[in-house]
Amino acid sequence: MRQESTSSAYAASAVSGAGELLQLLRDETPRTRAELAKLTGLARSTVGARVDALLATGLLAPSGEAVSTGGRPPVRFAFNPEARVVVGADIGATHGRVALTDLSGRPICEIGESLDITDGPEVVLDWLVATTRRLLKQAGRQPRELIGIGIGVPGPVEHSSGRPMRPPIMPGWDGYDVPRHLQRDFDVPVLVDNDVNIMALGEHAMAHPGVEHLLFVKVATGIGAGIISGGRLHRGAVGAAGDLGHVAAPHAPEVLCSCGNIGCLEAVASGPAISKSLKEIGILAESNADIVELVRGGNIPAALAIRQAGRTIGEVLATCVSLLNPSVIVIGGSLVQAGESLIAGVREVVYGRSLPLATGVLQIVPATTGVQAGVIGAATMVIQHSLTADRVDLAIARQSAS
Amino acid sequence: MRQESTSSAYAASAVSGAGELLQLLRDETPRTRAELAKLTGLARSTVGARVDALLATGLLAPSGEAVSTGGRPPVRFAFNPEARVVVGADIGATHGRVALTDLSGRPICEIGESLDITDGPEVVLDWLVATTRRLLKQAGRQPRELIGIGIGVPGPVEHSSGRPMRPPIMPGWDGYDVPRHLQRDFDVPVLVDNDVNIMALGEHAMAHPGVEHLLFVKVATGIGAGIISGGRLHRGAVGAAGDLGHVAAPHAPEVLCSCGNIGCLEAVASGPAISKSLKEIGILAESNADIVELVRGGNIPAALAIRQAGRTIGEVLATCVSLLNPSVIVIGGSLVQAGESLIAGVREVVYGRSLPLATGVLQIVPATTGVQAGVIGAATMVIQHSLTADRVDLAIARQSAS
Repeated sequence: MRQESTSSAYAASAVSGAGELLQLLRDETPRTRAELAKLTGLARSTVGARVDALLATGLLAPSGEAVSTGGRPPVRFAFNPEARVVVGADIGATHGRVALTDLSGRPICEIGESLDITDGPEVVLDWLVATTRRLLKQAGRQPRELIGIGIGVPGPVEHSSGRPMRPPIMPGWDGYDVPRHLQRDFDVPVLVDNDVNIMALGEHAMAHPGVEHLLFVKVATGIGAGIISGGRLHRGAVGAAGDLGHVAAPHAPEVLCSCGNIGCLEAVASGPAISKSLKEIGILAESNADIVELVRGGNIPAALAIRQAGRTIGEVLATCVSLLNPSVIVIGGSLVQAGESLIAGVREVVYGRSLPLATGVLQIVPATTGVQAGVIGAATMVIQHSLTADRVDLAIARQSAS
Repeated sequence: MRQESTSSAYAASAVSGAGELLQLLRDETPRTRAELAKLTGLARSTVGARVDALLATGLLAPSGEAVSTGGRPPVRFAFNPEARVVVGADIGATHGRVALTDLSGRPICEIGESLDITDGPEVVLDWLVATTRRLLKQAGRQPRELIGIGIGVPGPVEHSSGRPMRPPIMPGWDGYDVPRHLQRDFDVPVLVDNDVNIMALGEHAMAHPGVEHLLFVKVATGIGAGIISGGRLHRGAVGAAGDLGHVAAPHAPEVLCSCGNIGCLEAVASGPAISKSLKEIGILAESNADIVELVRGGNIPAALAIRQAGRTIGEVLATCVSLLNPSVIVIGGSLVQAGESLIAGVREVVYGRSLPLATGVLQIVPATTGVQAGVIGAATMVIQHSLTADRVDLAIARQSAS
């Protein structure tokens, strides 16, 4: 990614502008050279040069013939999502999942394995390198076909540098240069973000692609949100947006939180907080999976506890709804698998507390993409980054220089 | 604005693409035809046609000569912000201010007058029409030079239609077609938004132009926010974003609000709420101006009351900071004129409550543009809307058709 500062040096090259032409073609509609010239107002010779440059990369491919108006029938071209591959990785506290996808974010093959984030970045990222090699081999693709690696991790990340920033459950990762580690083995852009942002991207891309304003909320051991604003991920000034775990929950009990503040959302409505409240009445639920099993098995105190957690989360989301006015809130994370109790609690408070203008169009729904949201979101992040007009031009310039 | 659906009909015309060329030139750097051809990769003939089309509109103007390489020296062209004018109007509950600006948002002349929003839309908008005519006359400009009218009003607005939506302090305005009223007299786009959004746009354009993530908070009779996300105004699904007045303030007294809920921010920290708390200890402050005067005059209970209001607003803003991670919070509205007390209260809670990662880069500052923020923001809204590539093309197509 460091080399991108030199992109202006290529701006005057003959193929500059090919990337812009590709944007037009990403709707996957096949078009002839003449149609492209008419559509863009570009000179025929310019369109010809740009089409040739894109054909050479494979990003554009012939796609059937147009009806001839006499003479040899003109060829149509379309975007070819299979030209390259992307790695999307979702690294959790105790589990990692990695997918190889095409350029539209569709997984080609996937691997999921147990890991321990506390083993530190060297061990975990070496595993990711090895897993990437296995996936490439499995799909019969070469490392040079890889355009980038997207990674989600369970903690705050400075997205511009790819370094985790004081992540509470990731000892040894603070400030670690994740991209550089991967780039020892793969000379491609490596983008890193927190797990909730990549889940938001994945859920948006797969289940709500046309929605402009969406809030994705993960409810599990931690509580966090990913914000889609105007169709794009809102990361904030240092990539810390969506960090809802330590906001004060209105009307919640004044429980001391691990962060040192009192009444944080995570301290009263996360999986561990529910486990604690159940333990106080003699019910043992050591993990989020235990809570889910209890609720599904008809345990009434567990169902009441998770519904109360939903209400408390709803108090905070009511403020988020007033502030952001989304049209969809997606509730994801392991606790949503307990069924309707959690979401019922969220809905009860949000619809009661927020103004009618904002809730009139609001849907509150469970996540539908499940475990795939993370890997698809991580791959989507890379595709959105790499297929911009400027970066396609740069890739073409590099290819013709080599 | 209704006519815009026909813009695709013009897409294939010879001058299509001129608007895109203008975007390049909006940095106000003068360039020759040859430089533009090189910069865009467009055919010389295409650049020539587009430059001619823009010259005919006046949006582009000759701007000195380049150094000749032999023969007649080539002419340079630059964006001409004086080619057209814009009206920006800031309609408050009891006061209206209207400015005529150029295409960079700089006011040419302004009029501010008392009005009563409860007189209803017919009376208030007739006043706006008359004031617009006075401003045009004063500046010696023709109605046909006007490209649009931007209006801020003190209540929620469906931005896409320009209709106020259940505005609590604007009787008679609910659902009123504001653009149509103005368009009886001026055949231009009319954009309407709430007053806080236009103040956010104005403050961003004038005082913080490079900032990607900014939160503008108005503290006056009501409390509301305008959100700049990724450099653009975040309006939300139905334009209701930033409506902070009726969110629950954590740790605030359980006061009944006019909306029917309990503990709303406006019920405990707005101007009227401060007046009420001062009255309880025998201090009379009937308006926001009275509160400001008391604090400035050294009245300690008034200073304490406004600082406490700042703390309560800070509780809600701490949640906003965790959610949005802005790099600047601007506090505006009439109560900020009381001096440091309000902002000191906000800072105290936000820096204490939010996570260090988010507050490390955060500045909390008073608004600097004062009464001009609204009119400049309203004009900026029109300019951002009207000078997009597609709309410039459409304007050219209409002009050459007439």
